[in-house]
Amino acid sequence: MQETRAGRVMARADELATLSEEDGAITRPYGTPSLVAAVAAARGWLEAAGMSVQEDAIGNLVGRYEGTGTGTLLLGSHIDSVRDAGRYDGPLGILVGIAAVEGLHAGGTRLPFAVEVVVFVDEEGLRYHASYIGSRVVAGLFDPAELATLDTAGVPLRDAVRAQGGDPDRLAAARWQRDDLIGYLEVHIEQGPVLEALDLPVGVVTSIAGQCRGTVIFVGRAGHAGTTPIELRRDALCAAAEFVLAVEESARSGTGVVATIGMASVKPGAGNVIPGRVTLSFDVRHTDDAQKGAAVAALADRARAIGARRGVEVVWETIQEHAACPFDERLVAALSRAVEAAGRGPAQLLPSGAGHDAVSMAHLTGVAMLFVRCAGGVSHHPAESVTTADVEAAVEVVDAFLRELAGGLER
Amino acid sequence: MQETRAGRVMARADELATLSEEDGAITRPYGTPSLVAAVAAARGWLEAAGMSVQEDAIGNLVGRYEGTGTGTLLLGSHIDSVRDAGRYDGPLGILVGIAAVEGLHAGGTRLPFAVEVVVFVDEEGLRYHASYIGSRVVAGLFDPAELATLDTAGVPLRDAVRAQGGDPDRLAAARWQRDDLIGYLEVHIEQGPVLEALDLPVGVVTSIAGQCRGTVIFVGRAGHAGTTPIELRRDALCAAAEFVLAVEESARSGTGVVATIGMASVKPGAGNVIPGRVTLSFDVRHTDDAQKGAAVAALADRARAIGARRGVEVVWETIQEHAACPFDERLVAALSRAVEAAGRGPAQLLPSGAGHDAVSMAHLTGVAMLFVRCAGGVSHHPAESVTTADVEAAVEVVDAFLRELAGGLER
Repeated sequence: MQETRAGRVMARADELATLSEEDGAITRPYGTPSLVAAVAAARGWLEAAGMSVQEDAIGNLVGRYEGTGTGTLLLGSHIDSVRDAGRYDGPLGILVGIAAVEGLHAGGTRLPFAVEVVVFVDEEGLRYHASYIGSRVVAGLFDPAELATLDTAGVPLRDAVRAQGGDPDRLAAARWQRDDLIGYLEVHIEQGPVLEALDLPVGVVTSIAGQCRGTVIFVGRAGHAGTTPIELRRDALCAAAEFVLAVEESARSGTGVVATIGMASVKPGAGNVIPGRVTLSFDVRHTDDAQKGAAVAALADRARAIGARRGVEVVWETIQEHAACPFDERLVAALSRAVEAAGRGPAQLLPSGAGHDAVSMAHLTGVAMLFVRCAGGVSHHPAESVTTADVEAAVEVVDAFLRELAGGLER
Repeated sequence: MQETRAGRVMARADELATLSEEDGAITRPYGTPSLVAAVAAARGWLEAAGMSVQEDAIGNLVGRYEGTGTGTLLLGSHIDSVRDAGRYDGPLGILVGIAAVEGLHAGGTRLPFAVEVVVFVDEEGLRYHASYIGSRVVAGLFDPAELATLDTAGVPLRDAVRAQGGDPDRLAAARWQRDDLIGYLEVHIEQGPVLEALDLPVGVVTSIAGQCRGTVIFVGRAGHAGTTPIELRRDALCAAAEFVLAVEESARSGTGVVATIGMASVKPGAGNVIPGRVTLSFDVRHTDDAQKGAAVAALADRARAIGARRGVEVVWETIQEHAACPFDERLVAALSRAVEAAGRGPAQLLPSGAGHDAVSMAHLTGVAMLFVRCAGGVSHHPAESVTTADVEAAVEVVDAFLRELAGGLER
C-alpha cells in the first residue's frame, strides 16, 4: 500500500474532526448525531481491518480480530470529545489500535490470542458531567440511577442512550463477565510536555495518579485600601498568596506531588478595597495514595497556620477524591521492551496525571498505556497536535508489543 | 435647649438617610430628587442657625454667619452619597459645621471673622464617575467639557445640573475669586480603624495621600494540572502570589507606603488547569509624592524580576495617579491645640488615605480636616456608624478651633 498506516491514522483523525456539533470546532458529546456518525465511521474501519464488530447497550463498539488461542488482548480509547477539542485525545488510541490490527490483517498474521479494539463512546463526560461512562458500563461501574441525570437542555441520559443507538434497559447486561482477558493497552497523547522536553516520540505510563480536589476559603476583613494601615489589616489575598506559594513549594519538594491552584475568586474585588474573602481551588495528585493523603493534610495544616498567624479564617473542603490506578507490571515491562525493540527507546517511564478509560478497565484486567508526544503538551484545545512520525512510532511500538506478548506473556 | 447639638447632628443624619433614590438603602446621587430634597433640608438648617444662604450654579449651598472682621473661615463637606451608603460620610461635616455655628448663634457670639458652612453637592461621583464636582466648580477645577458626560441612562451632566436647580451655563462664574479666606476645615468620619484602635474620638489629619492605581498582568502558560510537571510550568498565579506578598512587604517596610492588591482575575480559571494569565489591580498611596513614585517603581521592578525568574511576562500599566495634598501647617497646629483644649486629646495626627473635598479647596485656601472615629473603620456601607459622644467631641473641638483662630491666627 502507498499510504502508511500512520498516514491513515492522521487522515482518519482529520475525518473524525469534521464530525462535530459545532461549526468550526470539534465538539462531539455523547448521544448526538456527530458521535453516532463517528461511531459509524469507526465501525467501517474496524470491519475493513478484518474485525467482526459488536455494539453494546451504551453504544461502545468492540471489533474482534481472532487469534489462534483463547486469550484476548484489548486495545482501545474513546471517540467523544470535550467542547472545542483537539482531534487526537481519544481517537488516536482507537486509530492506532485499528492500525495495529491492519498490520496483522494485511499480512494474514494470527497471534496466539485475539485482539479486540474497543471504541468507548463517552470518556470526557462533556454532556452529563460524569467521566468514563462507556468504560464504566463495560467494567460494571455504572450506576443505573445515572440514567436520570439531565443535560443542560433537560434531556435525561436515558434518552441520550437511545439516541446513541443503545438500550438503557440492557446496560446491566453490557457488563463484561470474561475470563479470557490478557490486558488492556490504551494509546493516548501525553497531554503534557515531558516527552517533548526529552525529545522522545513515546513514553510508557506506569500508573494514573490519584487526585484530591477541593476549595480553600480565606476569610479576612475587607476594608478601605487608603485608610486601613497595614498592621490593622486581615487581608485574605495575602493569606491566599502565601498558600499558593506553599502549594508550589510542596510540588517542588521532589516527593512526586503534583499540586495546582487553578482558580481564585477575590471579594469584594475592587481596586481600592482590601480583599475580605478569597476562594482558591486546589488539585493535588500523586501516584501513591498515602503520599497524596499526607500532602493534602500537610497543605491543609499549612493553610490553617497561615490563617492563624494572620487572623484569617480558613475553610478547607475536599470535593472530589480518586485513588491512584497502578498499572500491570508485566504489561508495563512488555511495553517498555516493545519501545526498545521498535527502536524508539529509551523507554521513558512516566505517570499519568490525567484520568483515562484505563482506570475503569483496571477493574477487569491488567492495564497499560503508551503516551505519544504532543506539541507543547497542549490538549483539550484545537491546537492539540501530534506528528505523523510519532504516530508511526506508536504504531510500530504496538506491533512490537503484540509480538512481545505473542512471545510469551503468561496469562 | 434640651437636645444637645450632637444629638441634633445625629437626628439630622438620620433624616438625610431617609432621602434616597433607593428603598431601604441610602443612594443619593447628584441631580436627583433625593439630593434636591437633602439640599433643601440643609438650607433650612443653615437658615435656622442664623446664616444667610446662597446656592451656586452647580447647586452647592453656602451659609454665611457674619463676623466682626473681614476674613472668612470655611467649614464644609458633601451631601451626596455612594450607592447603598452609610449616613455619615459627607453629611457629618456639614452637620457638625452647622452645629458649631448654632453654638455661636445661640450665644449671640460674633467672631472676628465670618464662618461659612459649605454644602457640596457631588463629591462621590456616583452618577458621573468624576470626583469632587461640587468643590471643583468652586475651586475653578471643573472643565465645562465634563457637562457632556453621560450617566448610565444617557443623561448628560448638563441636564443633571438643571435638575439639581443649577445653571450649566453659569458654572465658570461660580468659581470663587476671593481674598478673604482664612482656611477650610472639613470634619469627616475616619473611614479607617486607627482612632478606634487608639481609643480616641477624633484625630487631626496632616495631609491626603497621593495615589497611584493600575494593573499588572502576569502572562505565563496554561497547561493541564495533572500532566505538566512543576519544573516545566510557567504558572502565572504563582508569579502573582509572589508579587502580592512583595506588595505587602513594601507596605510593612515602615516607609509610610500604603499598598493594596484588591482584584485578581485568573485565566483560564479551572481547577485542573494551570493559570496562564493573572491580572492584579494595584493601589499605592503615600503622603509624599516622591516616596510614592519610588515605591511604585520598586514594585514594578520587583514584578519584572519575579516574571523574569519564572519565565512569566509582566505587563505593568498605571491607570490613575493623584498627587498628595499637604494640609496647612498653621491650621493643623490650631486644630491640634483645639483637640487638647476641648479635653479630647492627645491630638493624634494621621494622614488620610482617601480623597476629600479638601483636595479641591486646597487650591483656594489652606485646609485641615478633623477625623471622627467610626465603628470598625467601616464606610461606604450601611453599617457605617459613629457615636453621639464622638460627635459631641467633634462639635466641641470645632468650637475650640474657632476660639483658637479668634485668638489670633494670622491671616
